[in-house]
Amino acid sequence: MFFASDNWAGAHPEIAAGLAASAAGFSTAYGDGDLDRAVYQRFSEIFEHEVAVFFVATGTAANSLSLAAYNKTGGISLCHRESHVVEDECGAPEFFTGGSRLLPVDGALGRIDAKKLEQALQRLTPEFVHTGRPAAITITQSTETGTVYGLDAISEISALAKRHGLPLHMDGARFANALVSLDTTPAEMTWKRGVDILSFGGTKNGCWCAEAVVLFDLDKARELAFLRKRSAQLFSKSRFIAAQFDAYFKDGLWLETARHSNAMAARLAAVMERAPSARLAWQPQANEVFAILKKTNAEKAQMAGAAFYDWHKPAGFTGPIADDEALYRFVTSFATTERDVDALGKLLAG
Amino acid sequence: MFFASDNWAGAHPEIAAGLAASAAGFSTAYGDGDLDRAVYQRFSEIFEHEVAVFFVATGTAANSLSLAAYNKTGGISLCHRESHVVEDECGAPEFFTGGSRLLPVDGALGRIDAKKLEQALQRLTPEFVHTGRPAAITITQSTETGTVYGLDAISEISALAKRHGLPLHMDGARFANALVSLDTTPAEMTWKRGVDILSFGGTKNGCWCAEAVVLFDLDKARELAFLRKRSAQLFSKSRFIAAQFDAYFKDGLWLETARHSNAMAARLAAVMERAPSARLAWQPQANEVFAILKKTNAEKAQMAGAAFYDWHKPAGFTGPIADDEALYRFVTSFATTERDVDALGKLLAG
Amino acid sequence: MFFASDNWAGAHPEIAAGLAASAAGFSTAYGDGDLDRAVYQRFSEIFEHEVAVFFVATGTAANSLSLAAYNKTGGISLCHRESHVVEDECGAPEFFTGGSRLLPVDGALGRIDAKKLEQALQRLTPEFVHTGRPAAITITQSTETGTVYGLDAISEISALAKRHGLPLHMDGARFANALVSLDTTPAEMTWKRGVDILSFGGTKNGCWCAEAVVLFDLDKARELAFLRKRSAQLFSKSRFIAAQFDAYFKDGLWLETARHSNAMAARLAAVMERAPSARLAWQPQANEVFAILKKTNAEKAQMAGAAFYDWHKPAGFTGPIADDEALYRFVTSFATTERDVDALGKLLAG
Amino acid sequence: MFFASDNWAGAHPEIAAGLAASAAGFSTAYGDGDLDRAVYQRFSEIFEHEVAVFFVATGTAANSLSLAAYNKTGGISLCHRESHVVEDECGAPEFFTGGSRLLPVDGALGRIDAKKLEQALQRLTPEFVHTGRPAAITITQSTETGTVYGLDAISEISALAKRHGLPLHMDGARFANALVSLDTTPAEMTWKRGVDILSFGGTKNGCWCAEAVVLFDLDKARELAFLRKRSAQLFSKSRFIAAQFDAYFKDGLWLETARHSNAMAARLAAVMERAPSARLAWQPQANEVFAILKKTNAEKAQMAGAAFYDWHKPAGFTGPIADDEALYRFVTSFATTERDVDALGKLLAG
Repeated sequence: MFFASDNWAGAHPEIAAGLAASAAGFSTAYGDGDLDRAVYQRFSEIFEHEVAVFFVATGTAANSLSLAAYNKTGGISLCHRESHVVEDECGAPEFFTGGSRLLPVDGALGRIDAKKLEQALQRLTPEFVHTGRPAAITITQSTETGTVYGLDAISEISALAKRHGLPLHMDGARFANALVSLDTTPAEMTWKRGVDILSFGGTKNGCWCAEAVVLFDLDKARELAFLRKRSAQLFSKSRFIAAQFDAYFKDGLWLETARHSNAMAARLAAVMERAPSARLAWQPQANEVFAILKKTNAEKAQMAGAAFYDWHKPAGFTGPIADDEALYRFVTSFATTERDVDALGKLLAG
Repeated sequence: MFFASDNWAGAHPEIAAGLAASAAGFSTAYGDGDLDRAVYQRFSEIFEHEVAVFFVATGTAANSLSLAAYNKTGGISLCHRESHVVEDECGAPEFFTGGSRLLPVDGALGRIDAKKLEQALQRLTPEFVHTGRPAAITITQSTETGTVYGLDAISEISALAKRHGLPLHMDGARFANALVSLDTTPAEMTWKRGVDILSFGGTKNGCWCAEAVVLFDLDKARELAFLRKRSAQLFSKSRFIAAQFDAYFKDGLWLETARHSNAMAARLAAVMERAPSARLAWQPQANEVFAILKKTNAEKAQMAGAAFYDWHKPAGFTGPIADDEALYRFVTSFATTERDVDALGKLLAG
Repeated sequence: MFFASDNWAGAHPEIAAGLAASAAGFSTAYGDGDLDRAVYQRFSEIFEHEVAVFFVATGTAANSLSLAAYNKTGGISLCHRESHVVEDECGAPEFFTGGSRLLPVDGALGRIDAKKLEQALQRLTPEFVHTGRPAAITITQSTETGTVYGLDAISEISALAKRHGLPLHMDGARFANALVSLDTTPAEMTWKRGVDILSFGGTKNGCWCAEAVVLFDLDKARELAFLRKRSAQLFSKSRFIAAQFDAYFKDGLWLETARHSNAMAARLAAVMERAPSARLAWQPQANEVFAILKKTNAEKAQMAGAAFYDWHKPAGFTGPIADDEALYRFVTSFATTERDVDALGKLLAG
Repeated sequence: MFFASDNWAGAHPEIAAGLAASAAGFSTAYGDGDLDRAVYQRFSEIFEHEVAVFFVATGTAANSLSLAAYNKTGGISLCHRESHVVEDECGAPEFFTGGSRLLPVDGALGRIDAKKLEQALQRLTPEFVHTGRPAAITITQSTETGTVYGLDAISEISALAKRHGLPLHMDGARFANALVSLDTTPAEMTWKRGVDILSFGGTKNGCWCAEAVVLFDLDKARELAFLRKRSAQLFSKSRFIAAQFDAYFKDGLWLETARHSNAMAARLAAVMERAPSARLAWQPQANEVFAILKKTNAEKAQMAGAAFYDWHKPAGFTGPIADDEALYRFVTSFATTERDVDALGKLLAG
């Protein structure tokens, strides 16, 4: 019963097979091979937009390079207070941008509050050297708390970004989970709603290691090529990423794994709602479930082999947590089975 | 006939199979899984020394993080004038060290000349803030020109390093090729000769993507963990690297692929020596062959499907090159066949 | 009537004279001259502690170098949400530290709230590479809102710092104003209360340009020497700073100018309290007065030649501000006269 | 007898007086005061070109910011092998540019050899991410060895720079000494010959601390403003620099001090040529004299109170130096007197 993170799973069998099938033969290195190019083209089709695609090693790299591509001297990127860029990347975005700042903005359950964002932007004066100047806005879809920005919420933030002359970045480490949750298209969830640059994650949804920066604004492509190489993120045998994405997109595998993962989260939420010693902290919208458990129950379940973590109370969560309780996170993935969910349910039921 | 680079090959069948075999099941992320730990242990056995191992995405990352681990404010790392760190990494070592400098030192055919190194070190005064201060020495084994440092040459440089209180880094992107060329042990070629930190490359020798920093000096391990994460080089599904190294080391596969690769280079050298329109620029010691061809012959061969690059004349190469000739590099790998070599030979002959 | 900032004044006549008197003759450059050394010694006497002193060009440099001296990879320095380091230095602290983060902590009227600081520290886990790790705590004395930390408040924060193994930095751009406000000694306000490193400012209190990093922890001195040079902050004719500090300290001039400046602020506060169209936002404790004025009155005064700025409402200020009112800042200095203050009072009254 | 460096002198009496005269009164801070603006205007007149002027703390800052203004990701700036940027700035240029590289180019006696520069440029391929890409060329006028680029030599290098699409920076720490040596105008020695950005030094020629970046290409002005602030180089009481430059330019004082300084160097050269135990290493063209002395004689002179340093043999100097001899540098300044020179001559004569 592994609910610690979706990155505890391995690779989906189709992806493992696709990779193995590409092992033989020679190919131009550094992202210029035939399979690389075919996959770039596939991205353009999927997004219904000509895009530039840059494979990188990690989601942290995709986020950091995205912010670096739009950085300015004294730059400030506005993000949610509990976003991955600010809480889980060891300062990589600041490092990749040569010291630019992440300005945390409030908002309930992992989503930036547009009014708070507007206030934060108004406090910054782009022409005033002392404060530094806004460089980008970044949102996470789906968020760190398993919620999802609705399409209108994305539009609202991108309208604000445009008004202030700023690019909008989307951290899509769990892009597919949000996409199927909203039942929309990649185009609708990104450039049609004003997203300029996207961290597109495949790793958490069934790949071994398949992350990419997707640029809708091709003017930045050349700069990104140098940024990526300088940060040691340019793979030589790049097709090992391409082969994973090739299998990922084939016959909609990526949507299928995301749907499965979300369905497992929904099933787990239902389990939590029924369990006498647990209660759902808020409704999951993607593949992460947050629940309040008695600490003793949680420990018992962990000792019985269930892997999951306790979690900080996010901004916007006001529900009471008793002294003998704590908040816990459960993440599902393509590899989670109904049996796993039900076994966890039984454990928690006692 | 692919001789452009050893990174044009894909993955060795055993490595592809090993990776596929590890796809199922769950594992702790970020390098703490069982397979990760088993592979770290394997490194310690192979090097006959307790080592700390850090998987990273690229050889450039391994080199840059190694130099960053030993960096000082105003630091200067001494390297060969034509080394990969200075000529092929787009400034990544400087970026990872926050702006420290690579000081190029001369030497014939890719190997640092110990006397020149001594002169360069004497010009630097470690206690003088104006010049900056020496931080590390880095050598490449095998070198960018397909030569190999003998064990005594490594000792000579490390003795110099110790005398100046500096750590010695080895860029081992082609470590295995040098190892079998010298017919020695990993321990003999590294810490027994004074190497403190090693970039250990598996990618060019049959893996998809398997690079590691190997630390003999465990005091730096904690710092390296933060440096790696901050540079977005910490893989979540880390076992996909571990699985490759596991297969790489199994039954000495890595030595076998390196021996094959070197043997193909030797065969190619013999072909060059026989070819009327070609001549060997110098004797290869690993898996790279440099030869002087008539430009028209080279172009004909390239048009007939042979992939290889022309190359800068390295320091120390004094042989004449006529106006209608140029210097070319041919790299062999685990995937190079005798048939490929002989086919190239025929092309060049005819 | 110049109340825009204490850096709108020039140099105190004694300091100007001291500088002029040092113009002739030769002296070792780069901080090693006789006058430099005499002044370093003077600092040690004034602080009753052996200190290492580093002259730098600006307060921003002093702060940024102080944080850099204690930085770690993935480092996080905790500061007040509205501190100068985070709001007025264009990202210099992040730049000097190679991308480390400033984590804003709440607190009323410019002073960090120790409880909020404790909470922020508990959210960080020093051994966990993902979040990064705490590197330093920095406080401002006197603060950006003209308030002063009491000695016990400094002790409370430094105790917290020690408990978490962190150094405590004090931004003393207005050190003298706080010192005379508390009627204490430099030693009591710094190392005796747990301060490890201090940005000591002379510029705002009567010098042209006299800023220094004062290190109580001599182990960091060597590193700071390299950090300063690498950031282009090492003056060649260093004695031009030394001469200013020499005059600054002579016969307690620095305390006299600070007392005068604070007295002018107190006088201005009294004026505000009496003025029908103005009210004091909070009691000043140093040389900055914050008042709420009708916007039309403020504009009239500005058009009549009074220089002062409107200001953001700081955290902890809850007083109502009507729609036709705004918050304004008035800064006094050694050069402010009673006549200036009274003239401003008349303008605002009328 | 102080010949150690021109920065061992203090301030010229006229400059000291000008500074003292500006001490009273209030002025807008951060470079926007009336005197600041008047001095910027004066620069435009002197250079017969609209320029943007940025006061900074040190020559190292001026150089580093100049290179940062034109930097690119993976950027490489080409400089003379023994230039100040590469040998005396502790890595500040690399730090300010976020890790870009200085590529050393050969040339006799401190001047870049245009042919060697062309070769170095041809080895770099601007569109190839691996090598990085050329960002700027920087020359020093007068050079570190007291020589001067002739106007045609500047044109030759700037033509090369233009052909490769690169900006040309001039390190003018000793700008005035070169200017009067060539008996030309500031315009002729800079933008009319293709210089895009200049480090203009006043400190070594009679100021306390007066360095500026002078931009002929106004498009970079906004970026430089942020770069300067972020590197903590924006003075608050900026007029203390303005007042020095005001006096410096008044009635051609700066040309007069430079002429005096050069004349003292010429006198010293003549002394060397006459001294039996000394010989001139090469003819000085500005205010630095290099001579070969018997070590025992040099030590005797130093013990008798003459301050001067021994020096590395520069590239292009082929003259023999016996084992009991060494190369020494003697620098003159506005404060050097004929008496000093003659006294040194006597000492060396024995």
